[in-house]
Amino acid sequence: MAQKPSIPKGTRDFSPVEMARRNYIFDTIKEAFRLFGYRQIETPAMENFSTLMGKYGEEGDKLLFKILNSGDFLRSVKPADLEEKNLPKLTADMCEKGLRYDLTVPFARYVVQHRNELQFPFKRFQIQPVWRADRPQKGRYREFYQCDADVVGSDSLNNEIELLALIDTVMSRLGIRTVTKVNNRKILSGIAEIMGESERLTDITVAIDKIDKIGLDNVKAELIEKGISEESVARLEPFLTLSGTDDEKLAVLERELAGSETGLKGIAELREVLDGFKALVPDNEVELDISLARGLNYYTGTIIEVKAKDVEIGSITGGGRYDNLTGVFGVDGLSGVGISFGADRIYDVLNQLELYPEAISGAVDVLFINFGEAEARAALKALKELRAAGISCELYPESSKMKKQMAYANGAGVPFVAIIGETELAEGKVTVKNMSTGEQESVAVSDLPQWLKEKK
Amino acid sequence: MAQKPSIPKGTRDFSPVEMARRNYIFDTIKEAFRLFGYRQIETPAMENFSTLMGKYGEEGDKLLFKILNSGDFLRSVKPADLEEKNLPKLTADMCEKGLRYDLTVPFARYVVQHRNELQFPFKRFQIQPVWRADRPQKGRYREFYQCDADVVGSDSLNNEIELLALIDTVMSRLGIRTVTKVNNRKILSGIAEIMGESERLTDITVAIDKIDKIGLDNVKAELIEKGISEESVARLEPFLTLSGTDDEKLAVLERELAGSETGLKGIAELREVLDGFKALVPDNEVELDISLARGLNYYTGTIIEVKAKDVEIGSITGGGRYDNLTGVFGVDGLSGVGISFGADRIYDVLNQLELYPEAISGAVDVLFINFGEAEARAALKALKELRAAGISCELYPESSKMKKQMAYANGAGVPFVAIIGETELAEGKVTVKNMSTGEQESVAVSDLPQWLKEKK
Repeated sequence: MAQKPSIPKGTRDFSPVEMARRNYIFDTIKEAFRLFGYRQIETPAMENFSTLMGKYGEEGDKLLFKILNSGDFLRSVKPADLEEKNLPKLTADMCEKGLRYDLTVPFARYVVQHRNELQFPFKRFQIQPVWRADRPQKGRYREFYQCDADVVGSDSLNNEIELLALIDTVMSRLGIRTVTKVNNRKILSGIAEIMGESERLTDITVAIDKIDKIGLDNVKAELIEKGISEESVARLEPFLTLSGTDDEKLAVLERELAGSETGLKGIAELREVLDGFKALVPDNEVELDISLARGLNYYTGTIIEVKAKDVEIGSITGGGRYDNLTGVFGVDGLSGVGISFGADRIYDVLNQLELYPEAISGAVDVLFINFGEAEARAALKALKELRAAGISCELYPESSKMKKQMAYANGAGVPFVAIIGETELAEGKVTVKNMSTGEQESVAVSDLPQWLKEKK
Repeated sequence: MAQKPSIPKGTRDFSPVEMARRNYIFDTIKEAFRLFGYRQIETPAMENFSTLMGKYGEEGDKLLFKILNSGDFLRSVKPADLEEKNLPKLTADMCEKGLRYDLTVPFARYVVQHRNELQFPFKRFQIQPVWRADRPQKGRYREFYQCDADVVGSDSLNNEIELLALIDTVMSRLGIRTVTKVNNRKILSGIAEIMGESERLTDITVAIDKIDKIGLDNVKAELIEKGISEESVARLEPFLTLSGTDDEKLAVLERELAGSETGLKGIAELREVLDGFKALVPDNEVELDISLARGLNYYTGTIIEVKAKDVEIGSITGGGRYDNLTGVFGVDGLSGVGISFGADRIYDVLNQLELYPEAISGAVDVLFINFGEAEARAALKALKELRAAGISCELYPESSKMKKQMAYANGAGVPFVAIIGETELAEGKVTVKNMSTGEQESVAVSDLPQWLKEKK
């Protein structure tokens, strides 16, 4: 087996330096989740096929990774299905399980399965990898992490305000400058209603979304081509040309949607969310954007999307309110609102903008040079004291040439090298070298933990 | 779909309370890894089939979870193989990938694949789930976490001493009383050599392992039955009746193994490791145990096993030295030594002994009661200040009845409830109730972060 081993396409190994960077992101998000009262759950990587199938549309079903049954996986397979190459049927007969595709469906399954143990409103967060058999490309992986926070069992818009504040906390702490767009599905429904085209909601939102790219006339032409009457399209125009401050936009919307109860409800909700959040975090760049429609079939109220200002990478966080999280598992009436941080895109943003703090190399604080048996024994004792003081440290395991050991320290990015040679051993001292300045100092072994704590 | 959803057998959901406990364990292990200079890597959940197959024996191959190829998974399948139900061949033709079975093979693959980027000795740790299609039973799961630390590229026994100290650090911090057994594969080889039965090493170690259970005579009878001569069995006797302190045992071994170079090397190694570790951590209950043989075909030097003293659960940590980690991937000569913490067993031990610190419920520090719009707005502002001070907190989202909100606080185990009602709002104050003592105190909103920090 001389062939160089590799990993499946679309997956990644993470080196110590990469892990230090990723942990910095995950820890920042986790700490924000904790501060905001979200509590962690974990669910298995594998879910039953019946839990996953049909939840992500036909395309999503194809992108699920399926696990071949153990033992005789052909036991339920019908010869006719093999002959006809009936792949969906064969898959269902040979695979009882699949890898989770997102964290939302497992969460819905969790809520239904454990609903008698849960207290509502239930605020949960979950940070785990998901798997999709997507065509791998730049920034798109077959294994990647999602970081989700959801509140289920509460209709209050305070949840939306808190989630926007949570996003602001994470992005501020990571140093990412963002634009946050907010919309409400009910406004989009109201627009379609006013146009007399409630059935064409998807076409209409697609058109609104294109206005910046193709211009007003082309959007109108496209809608007419799709069979929407000129009269209806004329009614859409005030929404396509919406401009000004959020308050100005809301005033126009209020006037134009006066005839739609749903539309007015959406406006009231959006105003409460925007006003509440702006009062709380005045310096966040947040704005109403009626072209925002992500996951339209899924969201029923507030829709949120966050983009990084300094990198072209698409949305780095998104979410919204859904009225029926668990209906698909037979439990109706549980509404919720949630957001998902795209940890892998955030990782790419921080890499591009070099926004990592210097201290997160993941390197050990001190490396002890190994001069032989007696010196090593003294070093091991010193290590014990340093670790008790919370300082990470190691002894170079072999008494190799000094040059080799120093090269190791340099390569690993170790900030301090400690030397206990024959002289130091006799005097109960250690020579400490600061690897960035080159300075050396002699310190009593017993003073070393305190000395290093002050220098760190 | 009214059927209550479930998860695959042998897998688990973890609730917020369970996650708080598991994080306590993982964080303790991670912090120890960090203090000892191990650096984290992560590898994909899925590995290529060729990486996994043949690495765990025939039984292990069967326990691998295989991922069905995307798209037309029958494209490489031969009709004859289907007709004959040639399951291994069909599996190989339909599945390019499998879920990782442990962290050792992915680590070996990682070291070979990235060897030009790595600096040796390379000290890595890895904490990730693994999957095995084992028959689920008490304490055995199909998805569970491994926590591995390995040094690769160093023969020094300082690594063993450090690993034993690392285990001691983790167990002391978790409050688990342990017995650590240490052996050396070369001693076992030496015994077989002295007996003139080098080919029968496995039978001999199995016999040594049984002495406590079935007694000396039965062990001897069993070996003779297996075709080992009475003369050879007589030579084994001194090893079977080994007793006393480690030094006494080592003295007997030295005398009895005088004719085996390998055996004497094993004794010298073991003495260096035991002496070094005992000098460093005198209060650890560590002992030489020549019946210890775990993973015999794998280890070539030191063998380590740790058991909990107060719970019958088998080994909770184990490891040892192997001479050729990466040979199977075509790169020889990289020796290493490593240990693996059984996080799921440690979790079971801490649960049984109730060794969790009280502070790790995962509950939020403060819950604000919601009395309506204006009060909620004031509460949201107070939350912002508390979070900036590192205090976790939340507002009950709806202005429900006080009783319902207090019941939620109780159920969630929240230590402090904060009340901003009409009076408090007018006075810029907040009433804080300590949920365990029932005491209430009125505090200026601006003083709240400091007040809570002192009470926590």
